[in-house]
Amino acid sequence: MTSSAPSTARSLLAVVLAAGKGTRMRSERPKVLHPLAGRPMLGHVLAAVEAAGATRVAVVAEPGRDDVAKAVAEALPEAAVYPQAERLGTAHAVLAARAALAEGADDVVVAFGDTPLVTAGTLERLRAPLAGGAAVVVLAFEAADPTGYGRVLVEDGRVVAIREHKDASEAERAVRLCNAGLMALAGSRALALLDAIRADNAAGEYYLTDAAGLAAAAGLDVAVVTVDEAEARGINDRVQLAAAEAEIQARLRRDAMLAGATLIAPETVFLSHDTMLGRDVTVEPHVVFGPGVVVGDGCVIHAFSHLEQARLEAGVQVGPYARLRPGARLAAGARIGNFVEVKNAAIGAGAKLNHLTYVGDAEVGAGANLGAGTITCNYDGVNKHRTTIGAGAFVGSNSSLVAPVTVGAGAYVGSGSVVTEDVPDGALALGRGRQVTKPGWAERNGPKARKD
Amino acid sequence: MTSSAPSTARSLLAVVLAAGKGTRMRSERPKVLHPLAGRPMLGHVLAAVEAAGATRVAVVAEPGRDDVAKAVAEALPEAAVYPQAERLGTAHAVLAARAALAEGADDVVVAFGDTPLVTAGTLERLRAPLAGGAAVVVLAFEAADPTGYGRVLVEDGRVVAIREHKDASEAERAVRLCNAGLMALAGSRALALLDAIRADNAAGEYYLTDAAGLAAAAGLDVAVVTVDEAEARGINDRVQLAAAEAEIQARLRRDAMLAGATLIAPETVFLSHDTMLGRDVTVEPHVVFGPGVVVGDGCVIHAFSHLEQARLEAGVQVGPYARLRPGARLAAGARIGNFVEVKNAAIGAGAKLNHLTYVGDAEVGAGANLGAGTITCNYDGVNKHRTTIGAGAFVGSNSSLVAPVTVGAGAYVGSGSVVTEDVPDGALALGRGRQVTKPGWAERNGPKARKD
Amino acid sequence: MTSSAPSTARSLLAVVLAAGKGTRMRSERPKVLHPLAGRPMLGHVLAAVEAAGATRVAVVAEPGRDDVAKAVAEALPEAAVYPQAERLGTAHAVLAARAALAEGADDVVVAFGDTPLVTAGTLERLRAPLAGGAAVVVLAFEAADPTGYGRVLVEDGRVVAIREHKDASEAERAVRLCNAGLMALAGSRALALLDAIRADNAAGEYYLTDAAGLAAAAGLDVAVVTVDEAEARGINDRVQLAAAEAEIQARLRRDAMLAGATLIAPETVFLSHDTMLGRDVTVEPHVVFGPGVVVGDGCVIHAFSHLEQARLEAGVQVGPYARLRPGARLAAGARIGNFVEVKNAAIGAGAKLNHLTYVGDAEVGAGANLGAGTITCNYDGVNKHRTTIGAGAFVGSNSSLVAPVTVGAGAYVGSGSVVTEDVPDGALALGRGRQVTKPGWAERNGPKARKD
Repeated sequence: MTSSAPSTARSLLAVVLAAGKGTRMRSERPKVLHPLAGRPMLGHVLAAVEAAGATRVAVVAEPGRDDVAKAVAEALPEAAVYPQAERLGTAHAVLAARAALAEGADDVVVAFGDTPLVTAGTLERLRAPLAGGAAVVVLAFEAADPTGYGRVLVEDGRVVAIREHKDASEAERAVRLCNAGLMALAGSRALALLDAIRADNAAGEYYLTDAAGLAAAAGLDVAVVTVDEAEARGINDRVQLAAAEAEIQARLRRDAMLAGATLIAPETVFLSHDTMLGRDVTVEPHVVFGPGVVVGDGCVIHAFSHLEQARLEAGVQVGPYARLRPGARLAAGARIGNFVEVKNAAIGAGAKLNHLTYVGDAEVGAGANLGAGTITCNYDGVNKHRTTIGAGAFVGSNSSLVAPVTVGAGAYVGSGSVVTEDVPDGALALGRGRQVTKPGWAERNGPKARKD
Repeated sequence: MTSSAPSTARSLLAVVLAAGKGTRMRSERPKVLHPLAGRPMLGHVLAAVEAAGATRVAVVAEPGRDDVAKAVAEALPEAAVYPQAERLGTAHAVLAARAALAEGADDVVVAFGDTPLVTAGTLERLRAPLAGGAAVVVLAFEAADPTGYGRVLVEDGRVVAIREHKDASEAERAVRLCNAGLMALAGSRALALLDAIRADNAAGEYYLTDAAGLAAAAGLDVAVVTVDEAEARGINDRVQLAAAEAEIQARLRRDAMLAGATLIAPETVFLSHDTMLGRDVTVEPHVVFGPGVVVGDGCVIHAFSHLEQARLEAGVQVGPYARLRPGARLAAGARIGNFVEVKNAAIGAGAKLNHLTYVGDAEVGAGANLGAGTITCNYDGVNKHRTTIGAGAFVGSNSSLVAPVTVGAGAYVGSGSVVTEDVPDGALALGRGRQVTKPGWAERNGPKARKD
Repeated sequence: MTSSAPSTARSLLAVVLAAGKGTRMRSERPKVLHPLAGRPMLGHVLAAVEAAGATRVAVVAEPGRDDVAKAVAEALPEAAVYPQAERLGTAHAVLAARAALAEGADDVVVAFGDTPLVTAGTLERLRAPLAGGAAVVVLAFEAADPTGYGRVLVEDGRVVAIREHKDASEAERAVRLCNAGLMALAGSRALALLDAIRADNAAGEYYLTDAAGLAAAAGLDVAVVTVDEAEARGINDRVQLAAAEAEIQARLRRDAMLAGATLIAPETVFLSHDTMLGRDVTVEPHVVFGPGVVVGDGCVIHAFSHLEQARLEAGVQVGPYARLRPGARLAAGARIGNFVEVKNAAIGAGAKLNHLTYVGDAEVGAGANLGAGTITCNYDGVNKHRTTIGAGAFVGSNSSLVAPVTVGAGAYVGSGSVVTEDVPDGALALGRGRQVTKPGWAERNGPKARKD
């Protein structure tokens, strides 16, 4: 009856409510745009409804919020955004997408932009009873402390009512099955049920919850699907935001470990929603992955590294204290050491950038070795220029490569050089002052002499 | 009866016992000076008694401990320090401050230098019953495991005795309400009660605890105020010190988040007792705030940053791997990047110090751009000198600015230069060796040739 | 009866089973070689059996695994490795060491290479009943959820059987005492019991567990020793590996704190199995200790530091962001600052390397001061060369010391110099381009001019 097999062939409209003010966030930013694991919480919800097989997605947002519209377009271009002009309750919010509902769908699922931990699997379970004839399906959880929640009252496996805490009898208050807010509705009944909801309550709001009671009262089948309390949790302030981040991180870390990456101290490693770690990757403690990172098999990410939009082929070692910025591409066996920043640069196979180096807008050939303190001077105050270092080149420590410039294959740059002109393949370049030594000077004038 | 309103008009003497040896800390440092969230634990206790409205504060310390006296003077200059020559128990310790007690106060509260988690609010609740006529108020907690603690025996809401574990009957041992040690006494009765305490016990010590029993025996009202066990916990070794640090950090993080800062991974962010984070500040994972940091609205603190005595105006971005040392002052929109250290320096609005840079004892004008590897050479082995960089100046990568030196507004320093003389506004300065290229040299003599 | 005193005089053969495939690790590396706290988990087991007084150790490994043999040789050179050609169950695996068993020992203990949290103390408790006449001793734990575990059935203090979950009656399933797998056997009976085990079960394997039932059936004394469930846990995937790491780290941190080191945030500090921290050492949050680190009394390790095979004498301060690599030796009072890497180098008493520095293959004299950005150019592409800096020398910021090179005692190197020749004691060396200033150039040609 609740098998998800038949539901996959059914069309699904997901309505995502994303208009909440989020006052307790104390933020200029709309609540649903606060990020979790590197993407807005709304992005997590959209990814879940998409993965659950939504054939159409309607996002209900505050009117004129270009930032929300932009986030929706980035996460799910085919989603439509509907403005909710007035804020008159959740049922009213769903009806802001009346046009989408009117177009019809076998199943309708209502999700919330500020309840980002709900998984695609839960949404699939939520809609499944619709295929078996249910008119409404309520998502519910067993609350450790149900105080304040609406209780889901069930008789013979069917929901008969959702009772608000303040209206509940003593016996009903003993019920710990609570309404999570998310709901699935049969597409054929959704509009009629929503239109039947009245705002005859203390707050004067139209509550989506009432759809369950109305359906039950009309003799329709109202089912309930349960979920862990943690997954059902909404986010109203930044303490809850941090708790949700922790939960998402725990999932991401666990998945990465079971797939064959060692996280020595997973609680100190922060992944993005799209981080890809290969097999036998080792991640030391204290590593942060921004979005867009792909790490090949057998790589080692040493402690205190920070990676974002970077691709590492197999067997690369980075860190400790390596910063890979967008566009860093490291070929097999490359080695990025401590206090090294790589940005928009392709580093060849086996090349070494081991210490105190900045390489930006550059190409470094296979097997090249950049000494400690090498800096590509890629910016002249107006434009960025490229540096090209050939295969097997050796750049002495503390050198400055003033772009645009090329150091040829197998070329050698002396330590402390400022390289302003191209260095041909196999050539030597020196660009530094000649040493002058003055015997006895420091003895007479140096720190020791002056301190005495 | 326990309303705190009337107590605010009453004078309050706080006696803080700070003479403990702390043998289990295994430290040269007195126990009460071990820091938590960037200040000595004694400082936390003094801040709490001050916030609770203490009109006078007496600290009882080991004689001759200048370090303790100094810490008291820094935390609360008006506090008086009383030496405790002999160590004969807590009541004896309180009486080391006999002069303060003799001066009189409406209320007396006894706190402990090694019980630093007790809040001002708890101290206010502790003294409140004195205003209602209590002679003594005992602070107590419900122990998860009461073994070893003194049990607080209560009849009809009044304390009748505090029974040491070893003296307790089976029935009394079932009591889980335990003595936390802190006590409030009516100022009019304090000295008489303390003087009545006898050392007629196995240890031969004068126990403050006995004041409760003596008062009860004399028919006086002895009240009890409860507190969470975690808050009442004393610190005796470094495992407990770390647990207290964790508790204080949890409070600080929670307050920061509820006030509108996002801590993506609060468990990896370490705040000081005085850290101030503005609204819509984002703090990435793995950040350490030393004392004296103020962060303006909308700032972003990237991962692996370390800040101490630094002020950031609105919209500043720092890190990852930014180190702001005392005296760093960053104007609006400034940008401090990776592997950059700023010390005693004012960075102008929108200025950029993005990579591998040390700026100390300096002033950097608005909109200036310091290339990667820029170093202010502020120390000549004897004295520190200042560097001044004008608005809109551009300092090429890997340059050394040998202070005292000025780079004028809009001036341009070529990459890899050593600047030893002032650069006028709008001028160009170069100070580097000219490049010499020797074709074929590396081919004949370079690493590859020698390895073959 | 279970006193360990008599057992110490008895000979002990430890058989360590280390041939497991570890499929769920999804790794090219054998399961028992995955590291915990800086050494392979097998190394932890070997250390425990050695500390428990094993007089001989037999490791049973997959044939042809040179990496396992090498790890055994490193951890415990006197251990013998026995190949297990076929995988026919734990009893069969123990019998791969038949030669060792045949040589005889008073006591035999069977441990597992993938159960690395078992302590020496537990192994001593496990063998102790043998001295009192037991033929077999079973290690067991009270499981929070015993589902799936073999139940240890005890009557009158003696084990009568170990019942697999699937074979257990309802009453037996209520038993929460579960078989941990480790076992001690009387040396005089071990071979006979092992040879009596049959593979007459569904899996067709020879189970070591059956030794308990066989002994009991033969009227021999089978004892049970209990252990915490956490300690008995085996490792089958990387989630469990991380949990074991967390448990070992918790032990190491606790020991360090009780011995007199402050770990401000112990949960962010990662120790190796052999890390030695002196008294009154302070470790700030976010520090990683690789193997082989010794830290003297009173040292401070600031945040974000990474140490490996380094020795710090008393009163040294390192970090934040200090990286000490193998062979770093810091004399008393030395100071290593931010973004500084030290490798294979002796740093003299009170010497300072405060910022953005790389010192490798070097000797730095007492009281020397290396300015920000100092780099020892130790590698010429083929060989590493040494740098020697004399006592009290001052090396100006951003200098490159091209090894092999010596800067004499009390010598002074000007900022931004490239030093290619030795600098005598007390001399001054400069090696940098002379500054050229072109007034008005930037005004006409600089970024601002070009942007306009």
